[in-house]
Amino acid sequence: MRNIKLTIEYDGKDFNGWQKQPNKLNIQGEIERAIEIITGGEKVELIASGRTDAGVNALGQVANFRTESTMPIEKMAYAINSQLKKAIRVQKAEEVDEKFHSRYTCKKKTYRYTINNSEQGSAIFRYMQYHYPVKLDENKMNEGVKYLIGEHDFKSFKASGTSSKSSVRVIYDAKVWREGDLIHIELTGNGFLYNMIRIIAGTLIEVGEGAIEPAEVQAILEAKDRSRAGKTVSPSGLCLMGVEYE
Amino acid sequence: MRNIKLTIEYDGKDFNGWQKQPNKLNIQGEIERAIEIITGGEKVELIASGRTDAGVNALGQVANFRTESTMPIEKMAYAINSQLKKAIRVQKAEEVDEKFHSRYTCKKKTYRYTINNSEQGSAIFRYMQYHYPVKLDENKMNEGVKYLIGEHDFKSFKASGTSSKSSVRVIYDAKVWREGDLIHIELTGNGFLYNMIRIIAGTLIEVGEGAIEPAEVQAILEAKDRSRAGKTVSPSGLCLMGVEYE
Repeated sequence: MRNIKLTIEYDGKDFNGWQKQPNKLNIQGEIERAIEIITGGEKVELIASGRTDAGVNALGQVANFRTESTMPIEKMAYAINSQLKKAIRVQKAEEVDEKFHSRYTCKKKTYRYTINNSEQGSAIFRYMQYHYPVKLDENKMNEGVKYLIGEHDFKSFKASGTSSKSSVRVIYDAKVWREGDLIHIELTGNGFLYNMIRIIAGTLIEVGEGAIEPAEVQAILEAKDRSRAGKTVSPSGLCLMGVEYE
Repeated sequence: MRNIKLTIEYDGKDFNGWQKQPNKLNIQGEIERAIEIITGGEKVELIASGRTDAGVNALGQVANFRTESTMPIEKMAYAINSQLKKAIRVQKAEEVDEKFHSRYTCKKKTYRYTINNSEQGSAIFRYMQYHYPVKLDENKMNEGVKYLIGEHDFKSFKASGTSSKSSVRVIYDAKVWREGDLIHIELTGNGFLYNMIRIIAGTLIEVGEGAIEPAEVQAILEAKDRSRAGKTVSPSGLCLMGVEYE
């Protein structure tokens, strides 16, 4: 069986998230259906680096599937896209080693959360940004986010009620910067807990508006208590930028 | 009567263009309705710098209206936006001289046309770009567009069948550049004919793919013949960036 790796962009607002579920438009199901058509009926399982929630965008999601198809690899992205809604685009298709697994062999993921910090927000980019009109200090936010770098138990930044064995994760890089009216929060880690980045963004907003000090981020982290962190902010600001493998 | 100038951003894909028309969602009508609500019933006429077609975006459209309202000017944008769909955002409201007229006193308009020149196109930005996968030479396109600078009769770049007294316009600046997979065409002029920028973009695409030489743009301009120019390309790539007044 060939093992095919896809790099995928999608517009999260048009779907109820990545995961396949009955009667709800989802990204996984749409791509599996397209692959079934172009392979003449193969029912594949498309494994992503991780699920993304409803409304979350991706510029560089990675997923793989196994196929008996003999279609040349350079035609694969065109063929799949020809059967997909334009809100999903396969940007690249590559043939990979049989050991490649989008989830298990993933080394790093990078997510970006974008806040529109203008008075009125954007009309055109409203599904790619979270509008927060109170003036934020991006330098304080950048100071605060640095406390998250390293291996930590991120229980304070995990949605309550979610079951996952361990809430220990490694963040390799974290930064916040301003680009005009936009504030970007970018995190690279070995994996993220459910809602973790949206809760981190909500907490950093409190830092940016001066409600809490940057050093408080460390205290929140150490408390291992969800109630100490900020709100879970809108999925529309979140984008999976890319996934790295060995 | 106070004269109020609005600077407006909108997401063109959600409307049948700027102009008010019955039974079709349009930007002018939506904003006039919002103003009627916040002024407690005034039926104003909102005059734009120019109409934009269905699907065309704006980051900096300008429009003005006259009102008896005594609402403080700094509250006006918030109040209007509170009554509008999020696909339209008033970015700024200013009180201006009674002689100010969005259309008649306009000096310069800047439009940008954006081509996505990647193989598969973008999912997230599909309504802000025109996808053209054939590799384009942006340097040749930039050479070609320079022939349009100055005062010319742009009849070759006017939609056939449109009645306008004169097709003479002045282009002050015109340039084409690449930003990764994107190619931007930006034109600043004293006004543009119906479909003019979309036809210019279609012609420059022919230059970029090598179908015609850059110098051919001058020959097309001088021919004053619509059939000599390129296709009218998609409105989704077009954005009104800003309007300048004295």
